[in-house]
Amino acid sequence: SISKLLGELHHADIAEILDELNFEQSIYIIRLLDSDITSEIIAELDEDVREKVLRSLSSKEIAEEIDELETDDAADIIAELPEAQKEEVIAQLEDVEKAKDIVDLLRYNEDTAGGLMRKELIAVRDSWTVLHCVKEMRKQAEAFEKVHTIYVVNDDGILKGRLSLKSLLTTSTKTPISEIFNPKITSVKVEEDDEEVAKIMQKYDLIVVPVIDEMGRLMGQITIDDVVDVIREEADKDYQLAAGITQDVEASDSIFELTKARLPWLFLGLIGGVGAFLIMEGFKDFFKNYAVLFFFTPLIAAMAGNVGVQSSAIIVQGLANNDVKGSINNRLIKEMLLATLNGIILALFLFAFVWGYEGDPSKAFAISVSLVAVIIVAGLVGTFIPLFLNKRGIDPAIATGPFITTSNDIFGILIYFWIAKMILGI
Amino acid sequence: SISKLLGELHHADIAEILDELNFEQSIYIIRLLDSDITSEIIAELDEDVREKVLRSLSSKEIAEEIDELETDDAADIIAELPEAQKEEVIAQLEDVEKAKDIVDLLRYNEDTAGGLMRKELIAVRDSWTVLHCVKEMRKQAEAFEKVHTIYVVNDDGILKGRLSLKSLLTTSTKTPISEIFNPKITSVKVEEDDEEVAKIMQKYDLIVVPVIDEMGRLMGQITIDDVVDVIREEADKDYQLAAGITQDVEASDSIFELTKARLPWLFLGLIGGVGAFLIMEGFKDFFKNYAVLFFFTPLIAAMAGNVGVQSSAIIVQGLANNDVKGSINNRLIKEMLLATLNGIILALFLFAFVWGYEGDPSKAFAISVSLVAVIIVAGLVGTFIPLFLNKRGIDPAIATGPFITTSNDIFGILIYFWIAKMILGI
Ligand SMILES: [Mg+2]
Ligand SMILES: [Mg+2]
Ligand SMILES: [Mg+2]
Ligand SMILES: [Mg+2]
Ligand SMILES: [Mg+2]
Ligand SMILES: [Mg+2]
Ligand SMILES: [Mg+2]
Ligand SMILES: [Mg+2]
Ligand SMILES: [Mg+2]
Ligand SMILES: [Mg+2]
Ligand SMILES: [Mg+2]
Ligand SMILES: [Mg+2]
Ligand SMILES: [Mg+2]
Repeated sequence: SISKLLGELHHADIAEILDELNFEQSIYIIRLLDSDITSEIIAELDEDVREKVLRSLSSKEIAEEIDELETDDAADIIAELPEAQKEEVIAQLEDVEKAKDIVDLLRYNEDTAGGLMRKELIAVRDSWTVLHCVKEMRKQAEAFEKVHTIYVVNDDGILKGRLSLKSLLTTSTKTPISEIFNPKITSVKVEEDDEEVAKIMQKYDLIVVPVIDEMGRLMGQITIDDVVDVIREEADKDYQLAAGITQDVEASDSIFELTKARLPWLFLGLIGGVGAFLIMEGFKDFFKNYAVLFFFTPLIAAMAGNVGVQSSAIIVQGLANNDVKGSINNRLIKEMLLATLNGIILALFLFAFVWGYEGDPSKAFAISVSLVAVIIVAGLVGTFIPLFLNKRGIDPAIATGPFITTSNDIFGILIYFWIAKMILGI
Repeated sequence: SISKLLGELHHADIAEILDELNFEQSIYIIRLLDSDITSEIIAELDEDVREKVLRSLSSKEIAEEIDELETDDAADIIAELPEAQKEEVIAQLEDVEKAKDIVDLLRYNEDTAGGLMRKELIAVRDSWTVLHCVKEMRKQAEAFEKVHTIYVVNDDGILKGRLSLKSLLTTSTKTPISEIFNPKITSVKVEEDDEEVAKIMQKYDLIVVPVIDEMGRLMGQITIDDVVDVIREEADKDYQLAAGITQDVEASDSIFELTKARLPWLFLGLIGGVGAFLIMEGFKDFFKNYAVLFFFTPLIAAMAGNVGVQSSAIIVQGLANNDVKGSINNRLIKEMLLATLNGIILALFLFAFVWGYEGDPSKAFAISVSLVAVIIVAGLVGTFIPLFLNKRGIDPAIATGPFITTSNDIFGILIYFWIAKMILGI
């Protein structure tokens, strides 16, 4: 039977199957399986599929699913429910302690440490003895299987350190915990940004990290699996922004969803193109004798765009990896040197081509020198904009892609005609 | 003193400091600190800094550092040494068992499961009793602190499952392991691609994953911290490729390194620009009466580039996340519908602008219809190229960025003039 077949599978695999099935089939399967497994499946579903599934379940049924989940997933799902239903579901949870924990978690912004953490953890007091500690831990045998760290707190709940299983198992039972715990522990504040949490866990190779409040009290813990999801989502988001796609869309989304995510950026490109048109219109008098200048505008726009995207990508990534040090001025000077070097090399090739093809060294010279100027400005724009946005507290990732290519198209073509005009003395 | 100050810091923080210091200062600090901490620092250094540091250490000194490391990091560092020095260092390792393990790990490609795994793990035999098991594990108390999973193998070393700490601690000592172990365990093959390992660990929320050979024998285990690094590096690489940057460069790298990574892609753009020039040259007879067509070439190139980058990014990301299902034809049809929809919306605006500005509806019509055609072709090219590369076993990530924008510049401008010519009946 289906339920036996599916019973062999991991809940993450079943969720993947349900994401592909139609709604009736998904609901059929969810009603077929036990709530200890369906709860995990629901937590793994795509957000839009989950929304539909939950809409067809009663608040009572949802509460039963939630009862099976860890508090972090439970709170995330409740947060997605319509306002009116949230209280209904919470009121029907069986475990009152858990309900309180969930209500507490709902207070935090989803992209902070508080939004990532769960309340389940094992904490012992520094005033206890080893014996007391082991007894307390036995009581929680259920949770014991997933313990990665035993936290040590004082009587006020303030995080003091951690206790290794080894010292717990190898010390005499009368030893006070205060004598054997390890005070070296990395923690994060409850309001810490999720990407910052990811950086900390990656840097120190952590599997879990405790979360504390302003007073240093232990509030919960974040496990690495949820942080891996943050890292992947943030990388996907930055990649999409660089490609001119807003919102979190997937190849399998509807044409309407995809258009909503793509059209605004294309519109930006359209406006940039109209800008370039107006600039060229303004220089149309050169047309008669210098048509060749116009034939190179796509080249100029392409080079300005590519250089701008390269330099902005390096800055965006450097900012994300805390790799951008020193002042903005130093960055700009470095990029200027780099752009000059690249620009001159490229200009030499272009010079040779135009001279050979057109047989006119002065036009070739004007176009090549303009190219160098365009590349330098493009590099500076690409470097400056993300640094500027970052200083203003705006995500610099929006600065790569269409934003940069569009502004560089306009700047590039303007500078190009302007410098060519000067050099040719028109 | 410095050594006391640094002693308070985590080795990852010290490595970060050394990455910024000059060579003499780094060496001074490394000689100052104990090898149990310097080994960890060396493993965390930037590759280029580590190379310099290791070059100033004798093979004996390097062997002492390696002796302190886990086998995965040890093998990675030895792999970076000059051929001649590798054997010298391995010969001077104190722990012969470890030396064998390292030699074994050196066989695997660095971007496979074998290249990521370490040999340290706790495995018990299914033929043992709980008592025997606990005794064996006590012997390895050192390693015990970091145990995440106790693997169960048969007498041939074939992975059978895992044993929970809970069942080990709560079952009578005479129980055979074969009765209490859990046979459900996710493993990866030793030749599995590292990104595939990352997907599996992310999907099943794993902290560690065992690695098996073709016969199913347990060869090692991979921990999530090393996989987090893989995820981050792969995301950085794809982001850079999309921006037209090869190699793994950082904002802080030298101008020469940065030029090496950026110039080839700019060169590609230059060639594309020359191609666009040649096409426009070919249509130069329209110049007299249809100059306006030429003024819109940057717009056409920009739209073709943006649409191509968008559609290729969605495919590249979909392929990376196993989200692209169904045939290539279905993909192309979907993208064509999407591009047509976006194209018509954008073309309506452009039509209104050109008609208003130039007062000539036939030119406005020709330019707008051409824009729709260009957007459709750009979308198809952007969809097809990454799918094609992926089928051929080439990383589709190279298909976004300059590769797509350059080919779409050329295609776009060619199609644009060709269709405008037909519509205007020139
Ligand atoms: Mg949450
Ligand atoms: Mg954030
Ligand atoms: Mg790390
Ligand atoms: Mg590490
Ligand atoms: Mg979780
Ligand atoms: Mg970000
Ligand atoms: Mg790989
Ligand atoms: Mg390795
Ligand atoms: Mg996961
Ligand atoms: Mg999960
Ligand atoms: Mg490791
Ligand atoms: Mg990749
Ligand atoms: Mg462009």
